[in-house]
Amino acid sequence: MSLIPLLNDIVGAEHVLTGDDATAYLSDWRGRYTGKALAVVRPENAEEIAAIVRLCQQYETPIVTQGGNTGLCGGATPSNKGDAIVILTTRLNKILSIDTDNDTITVQAGCILQAVQEAATNAGRLFPLSLAAEGSCTIGGNLATNAGGTQVLRYGNARDLALGLQVVTAEGEIWNGLRGLRKDNTGYDLRDLFIGSEGTLGIITAATLKLYPQPIAKSTALLAFEDIQKAVKVLSRARQGFGSALTGFELMSAYCLEIVRRIFPQIKVPFAPETAPWYALIEISDSESAEHARNRFEEVIGAAFEDGDIVDAVIAESGQQSHEIWHLRESIPLAEAEIGKGIKNDISIPVSKTAAFIEKTNALLQAQFPGIRHIIFGHLGDGNLHYNIGAPDGQEEGFLDYQKDVYKIVFDSVASFEGSISAEHGIGQLKKDILPDYKDEVELALMRKIKRVLDPNALLNPGKVINSVELY
Amino acid sequence: MSLIPLLNDIVGAEHVLTGDDATAYLSDWRGRYTGKALAVVRPENAEEIAAIVRLCQQYETPIVTQGGNTGLCGGATPSNKGDAIVILTTRLNKILSIDTDNDTITVQAGCILQAVQEAATNAGRLFPLSLAAEGSCTIGGNLATNAGGTQVLRYGNARDLALGLQVVTAEGEIWNGLRGLRKDNTGYDLRDLFIGSEGTLGIITAATLKLYPQPIAKSTALLAFEDIQKAVKVLSRARQGFGSALTGFELMSAYCLEIVRRIFPQIKVPFAPETAPWYALIEISDSESAEHARNRFEEVIGAAFEDGDIVDAVIAESGQQSHEIWHLRESIPLAEAEIGKGIKNDISIPVSKTAAFIEKTNALLQAQFPGIRHIIFGHLGDGNLHYNIGAPDGQEEGFLDYQKDVYKIVFDSVASFEGSISAEHGIGQLKKDILPDYKDEVELALMRKIKRVLDPNALLNPGKVINSVELY
Repeated sequence: MSLIPLLNDIVGAEHVLTGDDATAYLSDWRGRYTGKALAVVRPENAEEIAAIVRLCQQYETPIVTQGGNTGLCGGATPSNKGDAIVILTTRLNKILSIDTDNDTITVQAGCILQAVQEAATNAGRLFPLSLAAEGSCTIGGNLATNAGGTQVLRYGNARDLALGLQVVTAEGEIWNGLRGLRKDNTGYDLRDLFIGSEGTLGIITAATLKLYPQPIAKSTALLAFEDIQKAVKVLSRARQGFGSALTGFELMSAYCLEIVRRIFPQIKVPFAPETAPWYALIEISDSESAEHARNRFEEVIGAAFEDGDIVDAVIAESGQQSHEIWHLRESIPLAEAEIGKGIKNDISIPVSKTAAFIEKTNALLQAQFPGIRHIIFGHLGDGNLHYNIGAPDGQEEGFLDYQKDVYKIVFDSVASFEGSISAEHGIGQLKKDILPDYKDEVELALMRKIKRVLDPNALLNPGKVINSVELY
Repeated sequence: MSLIPLLNDIVGAEHVLTGDDATAYLSDWRGRYTGKALAVVRPENAEEIAAIVRLCQQYETPIVTQGGNTGLCGGATPSNKGDAIVILTTRLNKILSIDTDNDTITVQAGCILQAVQEAATNAGRLFPLSLAAEGSCTIGGNLATNAGGTQVLRYGNARDLALGLQVVTAEGEIWNGLRGLRKDNTGYDLRDLFIGSEGTLGIITAATLKLYPQPIAKSTALLAFEDIQKAVKVLSRARQGFGSALTGFELMSAYCLEIVRRIFPQIKVPFAPETAPWYALIEISDSESAEHARNRFEEVIGAAFEDGDIVDAVIAESGQQSHEIWHLRESIPLAEAEIGKGIKNDISIPVSKTAAFIEKTNALLQAQFPGIRHIIFGHLGDGNLHYNIGAPDGQEEGFLDYQKDVYKIVFDSVASFEGSISAEHGIGQLKKDILPDYKDEVELALMRKIKRVLDPNALLNPGKVINSVELY
C-alpha cells in the first residue's frame, strides 16, 4: 500500500495536502529555498504525529517538521528530492494549562508565539520571548531553533524559558517531559538537547514554559556614543545600576540611522546627522512605578553623561516617544531591504571584543570589496550583532554572488575572536556545509554520535544542521 | 605492564595515591558509602586527564571523578569492586581568566566554589552560586551535579550559570567548548548534556561562567504565615513587587524553629513559639541603595500584611540582624542532625501544589509511622522542599531501616503531584535503583542510548545515575 492513503487514515484526507495545496509549505518565506514533498500533513496532536513517524520509519520516508515557516536558514523546507513529507504543527494550537502560582504555561507546539504571549497577559503574567515574527511563528519552531529576540538580555533565549517538553522520538514514541519544575536533577538533560536541534533529533509537540510578572513601567532612551568601547562601558554601568531591570540594549551604527532617515522620512530620528558614530536604545522594566523608572534612569544615565561616556541622550517622555524609539530600531532591517539585497550575518562575539571585531572585520572586507556598506546593529547586551553588508553604490548587480567570500572573511574573523557564526537563527541548510570549518572536531564527532543514536535511519529533517553524508 | 606505573608516568608518582593515602577519597563525607580503588590519581590539567582516560580505555578500567567530595548521593565514591581509579580534580585549581566587560570568568574544574566567588568579588562582580559546602566543593562537582543552593530563584542552577565547558570525553579526547557567549545556535547543546550527568558521560575540566553585578544592598525579613497557601500568595506578590530583585524565599515550618530553639538556645528566634505554623525568610537584592531596598520592602511586605496574608513580620534593621535571620535558617539542618538521624528528601513540586502535597504526604506517613516528626524547609521560590522525616520520640533505634518504605510513600506522592524525586542533589548511587520507578520509560530509553553512544565501554562512573546492567 502506498503512503498517502495510510496518512489519510491517520489525520483524515482533508489534512493531507498535495499539489497546489502543498506549495506554500515547500518554500521558505524569503524565497531562498524551495523543495518538494510527497505530501504536507497536518496532524492534530502528538499521538497522530507519533503514528505518522512510525509509518515513515516503515516506509523509510524522511520527515521535515514545520511551524509558522518563518525561519531564516531554510531549516523547515524540504530538499529537492521529493521523498519526504512535511509535518505541519499548526493544528496543535491549544493552550493546555496556565498556573499562575507556579508561574508556568503549558502549550502545544503549534501555538503562535503571540497567542502564548496573549494567554500570559490575560492571566496577568508576562511570557517574555519576543521577536519580529511573533505574529506568525510557532512556539515549537522557537524552541526547535532556540530563538532569541529582543529580551534575551533579561530573560534568556527560548531554551532558558522552557521547563519541560513533550517530544515525539524518531521511533514514533512520545516522551512526556512536560514538567513545570525549576529544579529537577534526575538524569540527563534531554530537554535542552531537543531544544535547538532544529527537528533533527525529535519533534517537539508541547512545552511547559516559564512566566514572569509584568513590569509596572518601562523607560526607553536613545544614547549616542563616540565609539563602541564607550557603549560597552555604559552597558556595564547599566547592568550595575539597573540590575536585572535592564531589559534592552540595542546597538546601531550612524549609518543605520542614516538609511532609516533616507528611506522613511516620516520616522523621527531624534538626533541630527553626524551627532555620533554609534547609538544604542536602552530600556529598563521597572517593578515599582513609572516615576521610579524615570528617576532611576536619569540618575544612571546622567552619571554616565557627566563622566563623558555618552555624547548625547534622548530619554522618552511618554509611551509614544518610547514607541518611536523602538520603531526607529525596528525600521533598520526594513530600510536595509529597501536599499538593496545584502549579505546578512547573525553572529555573536564576547561583548568585550565587539569593538576590535568590528574594526578588524570592516578593514578586511573593505580591502577585498572596496566601498561596501556596513549595516551594523544588534543586541549588544547579548554580544549578538547583525553584521550586515551592502553592495558598494552602483554595484548591486551580482553582489550576492560574493556571499561565500564574504562569509569566509566574516566567519574567519568571528572565529579569531572566539565568537559564533550563528547567534540566534540556527544552522538549517544555510550554514550546514560551513559549520564543520568552524566547529571543534571533537564537538562535531559528539554531535554526529548523538544524531546517529537518536535517529539511526536519518529520517528527521535530513540535510539540516549536520551533513548526513558524514553521518552513516 | 600494569596500570600504576603508567599512571605514574602521566602525573608523577607523588600524585598516584594508594593504601592509606587513598582512604579519604574512598568514602563520601557523610560516611554513607565506602568503596575501593586501584589508585587515586591527581592530574594537573585536561591533557593529563585525557591521557589517563585513554589509558583506562586500554586497560578497561572504570573511572570515578571526584572534586571536593561533598556530594550527598554517593556519586563520587567508587564501588566495592576495587577495579576503578578515582580521578581527583583538585589540582586543576586555576582561575584562567576573567572578563568584566563580557561578565564572564573561566576556571578549571577543581577550583573551590568559594575561590570562584572571591575571584569574582575581587573583580567587582558576583558569581551567585552559593551553597552550604561552598568552602570545600569544586565548581566541577557543582556542574557535574547541576547544583542549586540559595540563590536559584534569581540566578538559576549551576547549569544556568555556565556558558561554556571543556570536557574530556570517554575516548580521552578534549572538547574545547569554553565559549563566553550568551547566544550560540550552532548545533546540539552538548554543554547541558554534560552538566548534571554526574561524570557518567564525560569529565568536565574547565568552565566559562556568567558573572553578575554585585547588589548595592540587601534586605531580609522573616515572615509568619497561617498556612502554606498564604506563603505561596506572598511569594507571588513578592515576584510582582520586587521583580528579579527577589533573591530568596526560604520556607520553614514552626517545628524547624522549635528544634533550633531547643538545640541552639543562643540563636535568636525573633518570634514567640506558636506565632504561626509556617515561616519564610525573604530577601531582596537592590541595585540602587539600602534606603530604597528598605522602603520597597516595607511597601510590598506592608501591603501583604494589611491584606492579611502575613500574620507577623520581622524586618532586619541591620546587616547583623539580616545575618541572624540567615543563620537561623542555616541552623535547621544542624539542629536536625543533633536530634537524631533522619530520612531526608530533596524533592521539588510545582509551587502551586506545595500545600496539597505536604498535607497529603504528611497524612500518608503518619498513617504508616504514627508519631514521626516532619522537618520541612526549603527553597519555596523554586518549588524545592527538603521534606525530611525524623523518628517518633523514643523510637530512633532502627528507624533508618524504614528509609525504603518512607521513600516509597514520599516519592509516590511526589509523582502524583508531578514533582521530582531529586531537585538539586542528583541521583548518584542513592536513587539510581529507584529512578526507573519514577521516570518515563521513553525518557529512560533515551538516557540509555546517550550513555551507550558517549561511553560505549561503560567506564565513566559506572553504577551511578543509570543502572549499567540495563545498559549493554
